[in-house]
Amino acid sequence: MKLLKDRILEDGKVVSSGILKVDSFLNHQIDGNLMMEVGKEFKKRFEYDNITKILTIEASGIAVAIMTALAFDVPMVFAKKKRPSTLIDGVLTSKIYSFTKDSYYDICLSKEFLSEKDNVLIVDDFLAHGNASLGLIDLVKEAGANVKGIGIVIEKGFQSGRQRLLEKGIKLESLAIVEALENNIIKLK
Amino acid sequence: MKLLKDRILEDGKVVSSGILKVDSFLNHQIDGNLMMEVGKEFKKRFEYDNITKILTIEASGIAVAIMTALAFDVPMVFAKKKRPSTLIDGVLTSKIYSFTKDSYYDICLSKEFLSEKDNVLIVDDFLAHGNASLGLIDLVKEAGANVKGIGIVIEKGFQSGRQRLLEKGIKLESLAIVEALENNIIKLK
Repeated sequence: MKLLKDRILEDGKVVSSGILKVDSFLNHQIDGNLMMEVGKEFKKRFEYDNITKILTIEASGIAVAIMTALAFDVPMVFAKKKRPSTLIDGVLTSKIYSFTKDSYYDICLSKEFLSEKDNVLIVDDFLAHGNASLGLIDLVKEAGANVKGIGIVIEKGFQSGRQRLLEKGIKLESLAIVEALENNIIKLK
Repeated sequence: MKLLKDRILEDGKVVSSGILKVDSFLNHQIDGNLMMEVGKEFKKRFEYDNITKILTIEASGIAVAIMTALAFDVPMVFAKKKRPSTLIDGVLTSKIYSFTKDSYYDICLSKEFLSEKDNVLIVDDFLAHGNASLGLIDLVKEAGANVKGIGIVIEKGFQSGRQRLLEKGIKLESLAIVEALENNIIKLK
């Protein structure tokens, strides 16, 4: 997706080896127009997958997901890291391994919002080792729903996420793939 | 806003006295089309306030804020509850009192994304006692920017938020105001 790639090259910053900072347009300050185009691009790439629901995880996936939901004209739902007081009955749960903290955290989703009839598109801002996506896949399977694909805004191509998701036979579409982050240079595929 | 009020009456649930559950369209599962209309409505209500930035707090304010940002054609930025590893220099911080937990939690925002030139519209999904809004106002003031108004999707009119914000001389627009939640009945203003 050219618009996105140009923006990464213009505004992205390499903080240290392996860390790309894009908080001026993607995950702290967010550009609504860019997110709308991201949503439309996911619609194109999963157009024939009969998507009925968009799933993400709080917090930085939400802006991507709501624009994708708008493009597909289906609801979006986001997994929560803390169980809200109003979420009492029927909860789907999973665990996600955090690489930076070397520990697991719980995620949850109300059973009400995913059913066996759902064809789910999982979206997120980043794909690195794929742990968040794998946790979300577990939630979908626990609900008996179908994972139709995963849509990622920026994939770190030098990490293991793609391989781990493809091994599960899941369709993966990344709008930009970072091949390397070295010496303050962002190399895109 | 009639579309929103109708939806609250149709899909909202009174969980217990004072607690309104709207997680099927606002803060767990989210309706993108409704959020887009919410964004447009805020645009109408703050059209002449020269808004340059939309500010909210993660997580359930994000979908509202990105659609509002789109309507105004300005960036949105969200305050974080945990400081990310990439947020190193220049951070604005504030504390928010959590009524349910009877304790304070920290919020932060990169200084990069709010300047003295900014006219800020704060948006959020709910207004109850106004603690989140007051914390966000502190961040804006710390940055030397101007709070031009607060846009709320659902206000709990029977709690103190409105009064506390109006005492600060801030323009407040709520798209739906709940007057009472009693005996499983939602009474809107």
